[in-house]
Amino acid sequence: MKRLFLLIALILSTLATEAQQRPNIVVFVVDDMGWMDTSVPFANKVYPLNERYHTPNMERLAREGMKFTNAYATPVCSPTRVSMLTGMNAANHGVTNWAMPFKNQNSDNPDAQLGFAAWNINGLSPVAGIPRTAYATPFPQILKEHGYITLHVGKAHWASAGTPGASPHNLGFMVNLAGHVAGRPYSYLGEDNYGNIQGKPYDVHAVPDVAEYFGTDTYLTEAITLEALKTLEAPIRNNQPFFLHMSQFAVHDPYNPDRRYMQKYLDAGLSQIDAMYASMVEGVDKSLGDIMDYLEKKGVAGNTLFIFMSDNGGLSLAYAGRGKAHTQNLPLRAGKGSVYEGGIRVPMLVKWPGVVRPSTVSHFPVIIEDYFPTILEIAQVEKYEVVQQVDGMSFVPLLKSPNKKAAERALVWHVPNKWTSDDGPGINYKSAIREGDWKLVYHMRDGKLELYNLKADLGETTDLAAKHPKRVKALATKLGQRLRQWEAPMPLFKSTGKPVPMPDEVPQSIN
Amino acid sequence: MKRLFLLIALILSTLATEAQQRPNIVVFVVDDMGWMDTSVPFANKVYPLNERYHTPNMERLAREGMKFTNAYATPVCSPTRVSMLTGMNAANHGVTNWAMPFKNQNSDNPDAQLGFAAWNINGLSPVAGIPRTAYATPFPQILKEHGYITLHVGKAHWASAGTPGASPHNLGFMVNLAGHVAGRPYSYLGEDNYGNIQGKPYDVHAVPDVAEYFGTDTYLTEAITLEALKTLEAPIRNNQPFFLHMSQFAVHDPYNPDRRYMQKYLDAGLSQIDAMYASMVEGVDKSLGDIMDYLEKKGVAGNTLFIFMSDNGGLSLAYAGRGKAHTQNLPLRAGKGSVYEGGIRVPMLVKWPGVVRPSTVSHFPVIIEDYFPTILEIAQVEKYEVVQQVDGMSFVPLLKSPNKKAAERALVWHVPNKWTSDDGPGINYKSAIREGDWKLVYHMRDGKLELYNLKADLGETTDLAAKHPKRVKALATKLGQRLRQWEAPMPLFKSTGKPVPMPDEVPQSIN
Repeated sequence: MKRLFLLIALILSTLATEAQQRPNIVVFVVDDMGWMDTSVPFANKVYPLNERYHTPNMERLAREGMKFTNAYATPVCSPTRVSMLTGMNAANHGVTNWAMPFKNQNSDNPDAQLGFAAWNINGLSPVAGIPRTAYATPFPQILKEHGYITLHVGKAHWASAGTPGASPHNLGFMVNLAGHVAGRPYSYLGEDNYGNIQGKPYDVHAVPDVAEYFGTDTYLTEAITLEALKTLEAPIRNNQPFFLHMSQFAVHDPYNPDRRYMQKYLDAGLSQIDAMYASMVEGVDKSLGDIMDYLEKKGVAGNTLFIFMSDNGGLSLAYAGRGKAHTQNLPLRAGKGSVYEGGIRVPMLVKWPGVVRPSTVSHFPVIIEDYFPTILEIAQVEKYEVVQQVDGMSFVPLLKSPNKKAAERALVWHVPNKWTSDDGPGINYKSAIREGDWKLVYHMRDGKLELYNLKADLGETTDLAAKHPKRVKALATKLGQRLRQWEAPMPLFKSTGKPVPMPDEVPQSIN
Repeated sequence: MKRLFLLIALILSTLATEAQQRPNIVVFVVDDMGWMDTSVPFANKVYPLNERYHTPNMERLAREGMKFTNAYATPVCSPTRVSMLTGMNAANHGVTNWAMPFKNQNSDNPDAQLGFAAWNINGLSPVAGIPRTAYATPFPQILKEHGYITLHVGKAHWASAGTPGASPHNLGFMVNLAGHVAGRPYSYLGEDNYGNIQGKPYDVHAVPDVAEYFGTDTYLTEAITLEALKTLEAPIRNNQPFFLHMSQFAVHDPYNPDRRYMQKYLDAGLSQIDAMYASMVEGVDKSLGDIMDYLEKKGVAGNTLFIFMSDNGGLSLAYAGRGKAHTQNLPLRAGKGSVYEGGIRVPMLVKWPGVVRPSTVSHFPVIIEDYFPTILEIAQVEKYEVVQQVDGMSFVPLLKSPNKKAAERALVWHVPNKWTSDDGPGINYKSAIREGDWKLVYHMRDGKLELYNLKADLGETTDLAAKHPKRVKALATKLGQRLRQWEAPMPLFKSTGKPVPMPDEVPQSIN
């Protein structure tokens, strides 16, 4: 009898302890935030742009955790978001450009030379058989099935209306607040009702679930932060592990002033538009700080893993009006939409008390599809079934030991799409592969292959392809193998109806 | 040592058992469903309208639980919804007409004789100091603080945009799905994207959170049912008690055909509009059945209290097009908006396995503000603090014993508003009180007092005021006392600027 009770007590207390020990997980994603849009220097020195922006909470997170200097997303939004939730490389899931709000529409621009690739224009689907979607099991679904309270707040944009992925509830989120099928808000201003304006035409970008703030001066960044804190009340009170996907609409356009911070940037001599952008960045920084503060106040910060990142590089197109095109991410080349570093390298910070040592830095390359296995490992989910092939690798070993010599691996980017009506640097119809310090860029239009050494040449200014033909061939072969293995979508030559060749199948005469 | 472990085991197992024992609670609210809009007869015999409608799941719920034949709401939507969440009579909370989608707008019609009453046009607020709102602590907040997972799906409409109550998250709901600030949907049709239509003007009635079904033939009733089942997954899996406020938009206008059921009603000889309405009713019935089925399949039906009701009487205005005005709730007089029984008496069914005996009936009057103390008692919340005076009484004793002779009490309705541009039977500027079988109706325009005996005259056809002056006086006094105590809003006579007199202050010369 004594032993029976001993056993019961042991089992019950073990269960209780285990339930408590699983960490909470916050992934704080900023939209379109560039690698340099922060006072935290991710390069090896402080650049003027680092001095422009005031992001004390990003600095605080860097002090309390680990800075990843070689963290990667994809060049645009939906591919990154789908990769995060599925663990698949974009070339594998096939959502290689952004999903249009309404289904069966292609966001690619038409092109004289190349026809549309058969990419998954409708985004992610947790249900099989939905035309032109990436069918996969999203990790929030797995977390939910393992007792996590799964919360999505802010921008969703995983799939088009009329498909199951349009609803975050179908992607494993128990709560969806403000997530819709559009990739940006109509407006950040409460005075604009965030786009829900009587007397104006319907606009799919109008933000749902924030009617409370209509007509007030509450900036959208602030509104969804306040809402996010509310979603945390119950799981914290119930002592349940939670996963919060805090997905800021900022700093995507439209550029609206976050008036709490405008004047200081104007006083510092910034132009109206640059000040506006900087104010949006600082609004996001406040949101980050507010969530960190809340977790501390509630006594759960010590058992919460906090990841901060952006979904692609900073917007650098001329129409954005912020200075000369493609200079906004310097020293990185180009910006959003590009396979050059300015388009894919993103700020990333990770705090995990008791595991990640404060003020550490990891230079090891990580990529967005790594989030899937990483988060499931952190959540102590050991066995799970998924319908997709997961490409990412857990970076938990790096969190435990930033200088650990991890296995060498190649990272791949793939854009068989025409994102902008005019091609730009690294923008439209490109693939790229990085292995170690070497990066190969493949131009689909003309079959050109460029080679850069990122260690020596972070800005990708000097093409070394002619100097290192063997390395070019090796990387092109590896890239080609990956793309074939994934059955990556490719554009077609209109003249022949044939797909663009793989990087290792380009006729020698071209290169 | 042995005793220590014994104690620990005992405490832990007790905690675990208690946590499991608290029942789940589903409140399934239909919008504008009349007392006769069902094949379940709530009157003492089967009427032709009962034979018109096919509601097998309402019948099933009645078989498995208790039918309340004297259940009351208020004449229109927002007052009922605020009373339910706060436990306050409408005359107490002051939200006596429906809240406009945008704040600081009055839904009352202008009137030549009477000026606007100072009612709470902006609805319910959980935050103090918001102009023209009813400040109160909603019970979902209390449930959430006591470990319930609180879920709202469907129509919200507790408060206007620009005030805290506009967000169900501020009313204690952890999940809000499709709830917005409007009192009806733009459309029930997926083909219409439920009102989210490109190229059309913005419409506040467009339904959020259902983009997944855009362009499909999924009727809104079905869409939000599917979504509701998703919200139940996590609490059931985690063995946490949940409260689901399943708030159907149907059968409020606009009348759109639920095509799954149209033909059978057309075949039965109903007109197009009557068939449309009947199809909407049956769509709601299917939703009810689907939720009941799901709970059974998941093995939690046995520990779930299920309440079914409507938020006011059936719409009976001529413009609705369904037959002759004010006949749709016969044998009850009038319909939505009226203080006659057709406007306030609603279908109500309660299933509570192990407590409520199957196929029982309670004739005892209950009213919407009773839900507050009832639900908190069922949830075993014994101590709680609220900022409001709760008027409702728990009907748990009735559930346990339907024929229990409960304390006699008076129920009050109060409409110092002009809901429709033309007055109708019992519609605009009325108060009423019911005690036992007697009901007094007060007409504010002319001070007239009518008296009915509901037992003998369910249809309120014979005014007995002249015959029973003492009873009239007693009821008018009680009604006047209540209204004064609650500081109920009253309209003003434009000619004098003075408020309409209380029913017990009407000059004798008038009556």
